[in-house]
Amino acid sequence: MSQITAINRLSKLNNELTGNRTMGTNKKHSGDIGLIGLAVMGQNLILNAADKGFTVVAYNRTVAKVDHFLDNEAKGKSIIGAHSIQELVDNLKRPRRIILLVKAGKPVDDFINQLLPYLEKGDIVIDGGNSHFPDSNRRYTELNEKGILFVGSGVSGGEEGARYGPSLMPGGHPDAWPHIKEIFQSIAAKSDDEPCCDWVGDGGAGHYVKMVHNGIEYGDMQVICEAYDLLKRVGKFSNKEIGDVFAKWNNGVLDSFLVEITRDILYYNDPTDNKPLLEKILDTAGQKGTGKWTAINALDLGMPVTLIGEAVFSRCLSALKSERTRASSILTGPTVEGESPIQDKQKFVDDLEQALYASKIISYAQGFMLIREAAKEYGWKLNNPAIALMWRGGCIIRSVFLGEITSAYRENPDLENLLFHPFFNDAITKAQKGWRATIGKAVEFGVPVPAFSTALSFYDGYRSEKLPANLLQAQRDYFGAHTFQVLPGEENDFLKKGEWIHVNWTGRGGNISASTYDA
Amino acid sequence: MSQITAINRLSKLNNELTGNRTMGTNKKHSGDIGLIGLAVMGQNLILNAADKGFTVVAYNRTVAKVDHFLDNEAKGKSIIGAHSIQELVDNLKRPRRIILLVKAGKPVDDFINQLLPYLEKGDIVIDGGNSHFPDSNRRYTELNEKGILFVGSGVSGGEEGARYGPSLMPGGHPDAWPHIKEIFQSIAAKSDDEPCCDWVGDGGAGHYVKMVHNGIEYGDMQVICEAYDLLKRVGKFSNKEIGDVFAKWNNGVLDSFLVEITRDILYYNDPTDNKPLLEKILDTAGQKGTGKWTAINALDLGMPVTLIGEAVFSRCLSALKSERTRASSILTGPTVEGESPIQDKQKFVDDLEQALYASKIISYAQGFMLIREAAKEYGWKLNNPAIALMWRGGCIIRSVFLGEITSAYRENPDLENLLFHPFFNDAITKAQKGWRATIGKAVEFGVPVPAFSTALSFYDGYRSEKLPANLLQAQRDYFGAHTFQVLPGEENDFLKKGEWIHVNWTGRGGNISASTYDA
Repeated sequence: MSQITAINRLSKLNNELTGNRTMGTNKKHSGDIGLIGLAVMGQNLILNAADKGFTVVAYNRTVAKVDHFLDNEAKGKSIIGAHSIQELVDNLKRPRRIILLVKAGKPVDDFINQLLPYLEKGDIVIDGGNSHFPDSNRRYTELNEKGILFVGSGVSGGEEGARYGPSLMPGGHPDAWPHIKEIFQSIAAKSDDEPCCDWVGDGGAGHYVKMVHNGIEYGDMQVICEAYDLLKRVGKFSNKEIGDVFAKWNNGVLDSFLVEITRDILYYNDPTDNKPLLEKILDTAGQKGTGKWTAINALDLGMPVTLIGEAVFSRCLSALKSERTRASSILTGPTVEGESPIQDKQKFVDDLEQALYASKIISYAQGFMLIREAAKEYGWKLNNPAIALMWRGGCIIRSVFLGEITSAYRENPDLENLLFHPFFNDAITKAQKGWRATIGKAVEFGVPVPAFSTALSFYDGYRSEKLPANLLQAQRDYFGAHTFQVLPGEENDFLKKGEWIHVNWTGRGGNISASTYDA
Repeated sequence: MSQITAINRLSKLNNELTGNRTMGTNKKHSGDIGLIGLAVMGQNLILNAADKGFTVVAYNRTVAKVDHFLDNEAKGKSIIGAHSIQELVDNLKRPRRIILLVKAGKPVDDFINQLLPYLEKGDIVIDGGNSHFPDSNRRYTELNEKGILFVGSGVSGGEEGARYGPSLMPGGHPDAWPHIKEIFQSIAAKSDDEPCCDWVGDGGAGHYVKMVHNGIEYGDMQVICEAYDLLKRVGKFSNKEIGDVFAKWNNGVLDSFLVEITRDILYYNDPTDNKPLLEKILDTAGQKGTGKWTAINALDLGMPVTLIGEAVFSRCLSALKSERTRASSILTGPTVEGESPIQDKQKFVDDLEQALYASKIISYAQGFMLIREAAKEYGWKLNNPAIALMWRGGCIIRSVFLGEITSAYRENPDLENLLFHPFFNDAITKAQKGWRATIGKAVEFGVPVPAFSTALSFYDGYRSEKLPANLLQAQRDYFGAHTFQVLPGEENDFLKKGEWIHVNWTGRGGNISASTYDA
């Protein structure tokens, strides 16, 4: 499309827009915010902002997509189509606010580089994609040197959320926040009239918190899958019956978006034969995304975020479908054939609800432990109650439960661990019997429950003043002279406080400790 | 020390060496191999090579350490001290073979840079430290461009191993192997007269296999810790009794170095009061090393190496000692006070042995799955039976069990999974009852068993033709239009084979699939 055609088209569009509730009416400089990337999330976010009274300038690399969008979903709304980066920039008020909703990685840098020649000091570039937080740290620094304010914002809620109110987690240059706060909080989801959007912190903090959100999402989905699997394989429930269980759970402590959609999914039948669609879906899942990043970051920061780790590995195992199929005919173990062995089905379901609830509490406690460590490691001031509120509504993990977490952190923003708050301490105390019984049944009947189990192991480990790592330290000292420290209260002339002690366990080895070489 | 003093000293040393079984007697060019880095591993490896008849030239950055070593441990042996890099190089036969045993990271690059001006084409630089395999890939390429043959070799066995026969895992430039094979296989441990050292593969393959070895070592140590913890906290055994259990296990299927040293550690008493030393050791362990790398690599390659993952996270949790201490007085759960609740202690111990054995089988199966994927990903030809044999003796994870693995892979080098071999299939079938019973007890009595549990969940998941990931795919399609595939055999007009299908689950959302944006 030539420059002239594009400008004519733009005039036409602007004429069409006259009479709509646009906030600016000039041909130029009338846009409140620009958005690049018209995939489903981008389109829906634009429609959302337009509904809230903002004039949005839309651009896409494949410009035909702009025209199609303008002629269809965007028709009659305060949305301006741009057919070039220059047109996009020219149509924006200053400071310009431009959201990128493009694939993470190189495309983000490419668009930033395309934008730079047209931007002025104080303009704001917002990356709303699923960028990895170290990239956002880098972009923040690079743009800061040029006087451009970079914001990396997590956006969650899928297509529905983007359209009707996502959870937004913006971080980056703090000077940008006053300029984007109104738009962001207007389009964001609301929880009890409070927007699920607040300033997260400096640099890549917004994308960091979004990454942890996604990791927790992996965990939430995994624990739901384990519950479904037990209801199906051990309880021998029909899909309708499992749907009823999730429907009931959605009115209790598990009330959440993911439990709600699980209910819908379980009720959904294939229109061709009216049989449950779910049972016809291939059981392999991808995992190359943010869940993996969270697990890797947890390993890097040394935080035991075990439930997300197991959730990611479960997806890996699911992907080995053909190998599993062969294994299923070679390997032995308990399986429930025919009738369910469960006598008291109501108890089975109630225990399972507690297992799911307790595992979720552990997963969120671990997630906030990771966030605490990240704040320390990366020098961010992170606001726990605000983070919990941002996740409370709009996003995939939204739940009543996150309302309780918000309250807990509002009551005590310095709460050392979520488990120490009376509400969650009480909840997990009450849930324990059912939790342990559920894992017992899974172990007995051969159904994998990696997330339920790791959550319980974490809980039992976390509440153990003494763990068997003393043996591990002794072993490391035995074979590698790695030294150990003495337990407080056990000091003596041989085992001195504060010293790294090496023992010649065998009577043969040297007394050299492994000071510079780790074997 | 001046140049002249150094040369005088060297003459003196060479004179001292006359009469020893050195392989060369000239003042210069007489050394078979050079070694840089005189920490405990370096010293012991030199002594080992000297015992085997090789002349070793020893150098250390702090040269006083060279003198001290020459005057003490090395006295009277075929060991030449070098007080500069030039001296080290001058004292070696061509092609020069130089092993670095220095701290991984920058020190390795620094020494390579110091060596380069003195080296000639065809000389061989061997990094025997715990380098990360991507660094070894890089060094291989960089040195290859200069005509220097780089070898990255895993060395395992701790100080004892280095002294009397370590496991050596060399990889890198294949042209180097014929020149180092004799020395490496001479100093390596032997298993049934076969050296625990063979050529691993190109580039960083040697350090890769060493990394997985260390990850497996983390896992082996963790399962032993869990067994010890259960014997102590549920069985209420004394340290002497637990030592007896490990002594007995060391004569069975668990016969291994780590079980043997655990027995010794449990028998070891603090000389000041004759009470078990182990119980006085601080129960916190570090984890910033190769175990973490293995878990991260598993996540990167999408392989469910869950047991190592849990072992690393267990170390992380152990490190949160003060937080755990607070948690222990706040959080509730079962604890065994007073007498052991176990009636049949022999059964308890036997079940535990099976839990440990089965978990180990899973851990090694996972490790070899990772190696298989790495070979594919990095384009290496890896030799499974040789890897198993390299781990069979000399190294920290050496065991009778690895003899079985060697046999299994020799019988069928293309074995898809260790669990599919009749020996291990049979072993895990027999172990299952005790394995499941042990986890049941741990869950009931509140003792954390993250490694036992994750191993069982993996086993039950791996042998499941259908996992609940179908629900996960449905959820992802529901909230993010991520699409799914149909299960083979369930295709119809609506669910087409080979297609990525999107369903409008709610009747509200669009029909756009998330082609470029991952929410």
